[in-house]
Amino acid sequence: MTGIVSQDGEKRLVLVSGRAHPELAAAVAKSLDIDLLPTTAYDFANGEIYVRFAESVRGADVFVLQSHAAPINQWLMEQFLMVDALKRASAKTITVIAPFYGYARQDKKHRGREPISARLMADLFKTAGADRLMSVDLHAAQIQGFFDGPVDHLWAMPILTEYVRTRVDVQNVTVVSPDAGRIRVAELWAQKLGGGPLAFVHKSRDIRQPNKTVANRVVGDVEGRTCVLVDDLIDTAGTIAGAVRVLHEAGAKDVIVAATHGVLSDPAIDRLQQSGAREVIITDTLPIAEERRFEGLTVLSIAPLIARAIREVFDDGSVTSLFDGQS
Amino acid sequence: MTGIVSQDGEKRLVLVSGRAHPELAAAVAKSLDIDLLPTTAYDFANGEIYVRFAESVRGADVFVLQSHAAPINQWLMEQFLMVDALKRASAKTITVIAPFYGYARQDKKHRGREPISARLMADLFKTAGADRLMSVDLHAAQIQGFFDGPVDHLWAMPILTEYVRTRVDVQNVTVVSPDAGRIRVAELWAQKLGGGPLAFVHKSRDIRQPNKTVANRVVGDVEGRTCVLVDDLIDTAGTIAGAVRVLHEAGAKDVIVAATHGVLSDPAIDRLQQSGAREVIITDTLPIAEERRFEGLTVLSIAPLIARAIREVFDDGSVTSLFDGQS
Amino acid sequence: MTGIVSQDGEKRLVLVSGRAHPELAAAVAKSLDIDLLPTTAYDFANGEIYVRFAESVRGADVFVLQSHAAPINQWLMEQFLMVDALKRASAKTITVIAPFYGYARQDKKHRGREPISARLMADLFKTAGADRLMSVDLHAAQIQGFFDGPVDHLWAMPILTEYVRTRVDVQNVTVVSPDAGRIRVAELWAQKLGGGPLAFVHKSRDIRQPNKTVANRVVGDVEGRTCVLVDDLIDTAGTIAGAVRVLHEAGAKDVIVAATHGVLSDPAIDRLQQSGAREVIITDTLPIAEERRFEGLTVLSIAPLIARAIREVFDDGSVTSLFDGQS
Amino acid sequence: MTGIVSQDGEKRLVLVSGRAHPELAAAVAKSLDIDLLPTTAYDFANGEIYVRFAESVRGADVFVLQSHAAPINQWLMEQFLMVDALKRASAKTITVIAPFYGYARQDKKHRGREPISARLMADLFKTAGADRLMSVDLHAAQIQGFFDGPVDHLWAMPILTEYVRTRVDVQNVTVVSPDAGRIRVAELWAQKLGGGPLAFVHKSRDIRQPNKTVANRVVGDVEGRTCVLVDDLIDTAGTIAGAVRVLHEAGAKDVIVAATHGVLSDPAIDRLQQSGAREVIITDTLPIAEERRFEGLTVLSIAPLIARAIREVFDDGSVTSLFDGQS
Amino acid sequence: MTGIVSQDGEKRLVLVSGRAHPELAAAVAKSLDIDLLPTTAYDFANGEIYVRFAESVRGADVFVLQSHAAPINQWLMEQFLMVDALKRASAKTITVIAPFYGYARQDKKHRGREPISARLMADLFKTAGADRLMSVDLHAAQIQGFFDGPVDHLWAMPILTEYVRTRVDVQNVTVVSPDAGRIRVAELWAQKLGGGPLAFVHKSRDIRQPNKTVANRVVGDVEGRTCVLVDDLIDTAGTIAGAVRVLHEAGAKDVIVAATHGVLSDPAIDRLQQSGAREVIITDTLPIAEERRFEGLTVLSIAPLIARAIREVFDDGSVTSLFDGQS
Amino acid sequence: MTGIVSQDGEKRLVLVSGRAHPELAAAVAKSLDIDLLPTTAYDFANGEIYVRFAESVRGADVFVLQSHAAPINQWLMEQFLMVDALKRASAKTITVIAPFYGYARQDKKHRGREPISARLMADLFKTAGADRLMSVDLHAAQIQGFFDGPVDHLWAMPILTEYVRTRVDVQNVTVVSPDAGRIRVAELWAQKLGGGPLAFVHKSRDIRQPNKTVANRVVGDVEGRTCVLVDDLIDTAGTIAGAVRVLHEAGAKDVIVAATHGVLSDPAIDRLQQSGAREVIITDTLPIAEERRFEGLTVLSIAPLIARAIREVFDDGSVTSLFDGQS
Repeated sequence: MTGIVSQDGEKRLVLVSGRAHPELAAAVAKSLDIDLLPTTAYDFANGEIYVRFAESVRGADVFVLQSHAAPINQWLMEQFLMVDALKRASAKTITVIAPFYGYARQDKKHRGREPISARLMADLFKTAGADRLMSVDLHAAQIQGFFDGPVDHLWAMPILTEYVRTRVDVQNVTVVSPDAGRIRVAELWAQKLGGGPLAFVHKSRDIRQPNKTVANRVVGDVEGRTCVLVDDLIDTAGTIAGAVRVLHEAGAKDVIVAATHGVLSDPAIDRLQQSGAREVIITDTLPIAEERRFEGLTVLSIAPLIARAIREVFDDGSVTSLFDGQS
Repeated sequence: MTGIVSQDGEKRLVLVSGRAHPELAAAVAKSLDIDLLPTTAYDFANGEIYVRFAESVRGADVFVLQSHAAPINQWLMEQFLMVDALKRASAKTITVIAPFYGYARQDKKHRGREPISARLMADLFKTAGADRLMSVDLHAAQIQGFFDGPVDHLWAMPILTEYVRTRVDVQNVTVVSPDAGRIRVAELWAQKLGGGPLAFVHKSRDIRQPNKTVANRVVGDVEGRTCVLVDDLIDTAGTIAGAVRVLHEAGAKDVIVAATHGVLSDPAIDRLQQSGAREVIITDTLPIAEERRFEGLTVLSIAPLIARAIREVFDDGSVTSLFDGQS
Repeated sequence: MTGIVSQDGEKRLVLVSGRAHPELAAAVAKSLDIDLLPTTAYDFANGEIYVRFAESVRGADVFVLQSHAAPINQWLMEQFLMVDALKRASAKTITVIAPFYGYARQDKKHRGREPISARLMADLFKTAGADRLMSVDLHAAQIQGFFDGPVDHLWAMPILTEYVRTRVDVQNVTVVSPDAGRIRVAELWAQKLGGGPLAFVHKSRDIRQPNKTVANRVVGDVEGRTCVLVDDLIDTAGTIAGAVRVLHEAGAKDVIVAATHGVLSDPAIDRLQQSGAREVIITDTLPIAEERRFEGLTVLSIAPLIARAIREVFDDGSVTSLFDGQS
Repeated sequence: MTGIVSQDGEKRLVLVSGRAHPELAAAVAKSLDIDLLPTTAYDFANGEIYVRFAESVRGADVFVLQSHAAPINQWLMEQFLMVDALKRASAKTITVIAPFYGYARQDKKHRGREPISARLMADLFKTAGADRLMSVDLHAAQIQGFFDGPVDHLWAMPILTEYVRTRVDVQNVTVVSPDAGRIRVAELWAQKLGGGPLAFVHKSRDIRQPNKTVANRVVGDVEGRTCVLVDDLIDTAGTIAGAVRVLHEAGAKDVIVAATHGVLSDPAIDRLQQSGAREVIITDTLPIAEERRFEGLTVLSIAPLIARAIREVFDDGSVTSLFDGQS
Repeated sequence: MTGIVSQDGEKRLVLVSGRAHPELAAAVAKSLDIDLLPTTAYDFANGEIYVRFAESVRGADVFVLQSHAAPINQWLMEQFLMVDALKRASAKTITVIAPFYGYARQDKKHRGREPISARLMADLFKTAGADRLMSVDLHAAQIQGFFDGPVDHLWAMPILTEYVRTRVDVQNVTVVSPDAGRIRVAELWAQKLGGGPLAFVHKSRDIRQPNKTVANRVVGDVEGRTCVLVDDLIDTAGTIAGAVRVLHEAGAKDVIVAATHGVLSDPAIDRLQQSGAREVIITDTLPIAEERRFEGLTVLSIAPLIARAIREVFDDGSVTSLFDGQS
Repeated sequence: MTGIVSQDGEKRLVLVSGRAHPELAAAVAKSLDIDLLPTTAYDFANGEIYVRFAESVRGADVFVLQSHAAPINQWLMEQFLMVDALKRASAKTITVIAPFYGYARQDKKHRGREPISARLMADLFKTAGADRLMSVDLHAAQIQGFFDGPVDHLWAMPILTEYVRTRVDVQNVTVVSPDAGRIRVAELWAQKLGGGPLAFVHKSRDIRQPNKTVANRVVGDVEGRTCVLVDDLIDTAGTIAGAVRVLHEAGAKDVIVAATHGVLSDPAIDRLQQSGAREVIITDTLPIAEERRFEGLTVLSIAPLIARAIREVFDDGSVTSLFDGQS
């Protein structure tokens, strides 16, 4: 019987995976020292997805891992269907693991008559049958409140900062936010890296030359310093690449880019390679095909963190203990 | 203000459309003599969909038309997002129109640990905010019961049979079901076409030659007759093309194929063209690209039927009155 | 303490029964080697039902067996009340066992402004507090999708076909559906009995004699053969008895009738006795009073199947394993 | 089109009735000066109920009247099915009218492992699709709180007291409660009848003669007075008839019995006739067959009150205004 | 790890307390021989409450004790927040313990356009995440039906009557209800104390002197007897103090007051001290500050009863067994 | 009849107010040119709140205004109770207006085992019966997604910036955020005021002097400039007052403080008066007692904005049109 069975035989941990990122699922399973539950998943000719689990999951605590990579709607729907199948197959609890939470950026109405897509996804998972959600570095921590149930919010920052520390002289680091909206994260990074200065890139119009187009300005002290440019995700890398350029123009010694989620939609790879950044550091919450990797790109594994969190959930331990109580 | 406003100004009918089948939406709008509500919908670089309505829908009765064509998960998700946006924009009622209801064929568990995808879709629409569902020729009428609210179930059969009558001598017609599971529909067709005989194609093993593989047999009287082979949908056309061949082998004079939904996944077009069928008749509940149309393919418009049903709903009339009380 | 307690004392299986079919409950309990939980149930003078359980059910996995026999509304309501009492008494899980699922035939709107009673029953059970549903041979498999939770769908066919094999020469059998709507079931029977031919009875008007009333015709090969006429249930037996007659007229050697559910409303007993069928085979999902049984009626016990399914559910095994993975 | 249509044509009032008490529905309809919506309702051979409405109810404010008389489970289920059909037929609002609310007496757990049937009924109506509930003289006013939505609680007391005033000398009246649990109602009656004394019948054991069985004692001043014995309902009339006897023994001049709901289960008619009460006054919230009526039984019509309340609901008026603001 | 862990380590009982009545929580914890879970709870400057639990509660059966004392809205909100935090922290079950259930007296609409506050509180607890409710002597037993789930209804009467027996000669006791609405409770007391006579105080107008104001009269036999005046709660003590006076005027030998809940809002203490009652007996379901206690006030501890009930719930025993099956 | 009635008499707008901020409710009513619905609301002796509406609200669109000022739990509970009463009184729609949304700052779990209070409040309003939420300048825009329904999010910024423009030379303004988390808002302000520079105050430790305590540094260009220090709310004013001081130390010419919500918990008034700020500008979303107002404090009225938004909602117009489509 696939999975981990508790000592008294009363509980069984089962890990299942969608098709979006099998390497991550395999690495998590290996960290847990279990096999993935054998699962059938394929597309019918018209694109409808079929899923089926090959073994009973009755009474099991099931974790359903799916990375919301492109084609993202396909993989979301597959995960909804897997959750529905688990519910109807009498799983005891169902935990959705979305290492990168899809649609997280539409977490509010920016203008009238928009959806709040991040809330909708939480509701759709709930409706399908999810009892708990696990994710890494949500775009906004408030998304925890979108799900009607427990959310285990994992932080990749310790993994990233631990690595960055080996790459920089922390005495000479300025942590930089690529825009005004994410300086709070940069502030946390600065604390972790020893309390150095903080800066951000600010899009502005010059009030005295109203016809001039918008320009990026650096606010804060970067001259001669190693800039660690941090964000939660890199999508097309337009903002990030622009920020690297501005930092260099402002006299930065060099620039390291660090982010949790490598969405890396086209033309991100080109932009990052040409940006002049010394190194780009991400985790593998999303799949990065071998052929897209380039020199200067470092991909850290998120699997051990997810595996530890799953284990804490299954053993009724504490997930926040992994982060010194923070959530 | 886009839409139809009732005489006393209290009610407003609004029609919006996803991107799956704009021609159908346009035709329905034309039948209703209104404009579609201007809508923005596009994909972000990583595949996430953005939707927004350009005008207020507050207090309106909104109908959201989306054809569940390929890429089906993309279009389903777009429709969920549109419904969510309408709900948050204070639409008074939201009716989902799915001319072809996606995932309808997974309407039960065929084996253990499968989802019941058709029920899940109904629940996801409900969660997003749908008040009512409208669809044409559901794969199983029981799907009406999957949605927790009113379902307007439209019948394309009158459109199809009216056309077929002009193409055959009803005295010499046998209505044929391509398999054992859909003879009830064939029986309704036979009644509509004047009560002629009924037949079906039956997959069976010869009990006396157990090693021989499965063969198709015709059960019923088809020799020398015009066979009207009916189904609710044609997907890859394997079953249908096989049935045409078996009917010809069994002495049928000629074969007409009629179905409501032209899913037509590859290699359906090839198979249908080579099947020997005299004519293949479908409706446009799903988009059929111009370049995929072939001689012998007839596509009837479903738009007037949908428009009439919308009008009945808006005017608090009776949808079943369109079908002599049947639902 | 009544019921089965798991080895480590953490789980407890309790079986309770309504008043509709105590013999079946007793047989299931015996198969499980347990006592039924002592239960009080009676009617007040005005027909209101009172129920109470004599022992604590706190923390137990409770199975509530009620056969939806006549007076069906009485027994449904009794089961709702039992489920409510169990919920308020802190049962851990509540599984409704409805060997014959009442109102299953109203599984869609046949005409406008009808209820979908089969869905309503599923919702009422859910509201009362049911976590899971167990039933035998649902009239339509889609009813699985009406319940928002796990459904264990048991198949009586193995029990019936195993018995029928002892009564016929399978080389000379034709499986017959009494109408066009249930040929799919007949097809499954034919497969189980070795792949013989298939037939069905078809109500039709003669198109060339439009004034003639509707007549039943047999479609398929029945002459000189033993016909096994199969259906999911026999209610008033009008259709079945008519089909037996037509089969004889079409030259059948003899006819055996087989169905899972013996509803047997008046005048079913008379009709079946006079139909000319060699044998009528049903199961005891519904009570058949001793005085209504007649020569030629065979009642097979469904209790061992239900008991095995309960045991699989309680032990977190697989119910579909009882049917080779089919559901 | 059946029903009342508002001046601007935007609203439509529809009244439908189950089969339990057609006379009351007819009287309410007459009071409202409308026709009942034509409705089909019958039992299938096995007792399953079929209902269908003959006209469209789309967009209408529908009131569904059913009296919870015996066979009570039958009529409750019929009302659930009617509500479901109305919901699926797109009624705008659905108000359940239960002049006598079934299972009202099981409004709490008297002992462990009982249902709270009155709450369950409220939940079942809600699940079926009811938006609002209307009832007369609930057994406990707290039942208002069992329904998740508006409850219009009508009082028959004004009708009853107005009539009683014509039958007694209010200067010489004592209002009596038949047991300790309903004295609060008697107190309200006493206020309405002018503030006379109050009494109740009390079951007790004599503490000094512990072997003597329980006896009924009158607490309060009844000698030489006309006693008006009041209750919300009369079921088997055991308590009431006993109370009449005890009052006579205690020297009451004569006794009038008044109650809203005439459940009158056997042997209520005999008991009441032989009790010695001068008159028994009830309303027709429940049907009283002509042949069960006896001399001394007065049945007042509740129809005008229900009609006025329906009208207030439809016109967005105030129902409590019918009772000086009390609810 | 704080709490009680079951023998096989599968279950863990955790008790947490709000800030309303820490003495009671400490006493319950002591009865259970456990420590309370360390909890942080304080008010922000603007009055918003912050709560946090210092240890993991994942997988635990958590009991949340809060006494709904003044400031009652503060303590209710604190309990809602605690339940929310427990739900999001993956507690397995959450039982709300409200020894005195706040807003219980608004258990119905007395007039139109009022809330049913007692139902609302039940719904708010459910929404926050409560699975079960435990309370002592609900103002109306119907409140059990307001909560959608199990309610453990504890009775303080055995504690109170056992004590009263030691203070009176039961042969000479009359149990008295302070008004017409609660005589049923007095009747239960009378049974427990040996079946003596019953009386109640009745507010009435003299019908022959309509201008005279309302007066209290005693109905029943109290002369020369020890009166035990019983109620579920004492709030401002106006009714109770008035009843003591009337009983003395009617010749009562002496009066003992007994109630479960000592709300004791001003000026209750003064009124009770000056009422002339020999003794006032309550329990500590609500905190009674040391300085408010007076001679003649007896406060019995409810903690052992709550502790026993918690233990029964945790051990899947029977709570009603504590009360001879009554609920 | 209180309120606004639409031309055809079909719709009625009703405004009711809790007791927290009657001046604001009066001003909104005046802007709408209506009377507030007469409402009774008071506290019982033990702190339980009683509410009742004096006129019928049946069928009305009701707006319930309550300012979440201190004592905040009291006023929240009052609003829940008002919503419940409106729901049970058959209001057609219920819109909760919370000009300042209580508990908005607890919008995520900062550490494990905390509640997400802002989500809980949204759920409690929904459960009580709210259909829509209206609020001004939510602490985080994501709170829109906490409510399951439409949220009308009003922006006070136009009111504030319009006023500030009259008080400063926009050519010489730097907009300043008091901490790293709210620079995005400052950026919007800067755009509105003409695109001037941006700065923020940053708490940091000096990495080279690790023993030194945390210090505030200004990041950005403030010397010689008028600093407009912006935030969504001012609570105890510790952060704001500190920022004013740091700005002066960094050479700012003068400092104006602007915020939407004046929570102003002690010792905010003292701190603001002594901070050295030239002017403190807030709106009256929260009540500011006359005696707490000081020279240099400007309170702008939010009432016209709320009135316009109510009018748009009632007329099925567009609320976002008030803000150029932004939400």
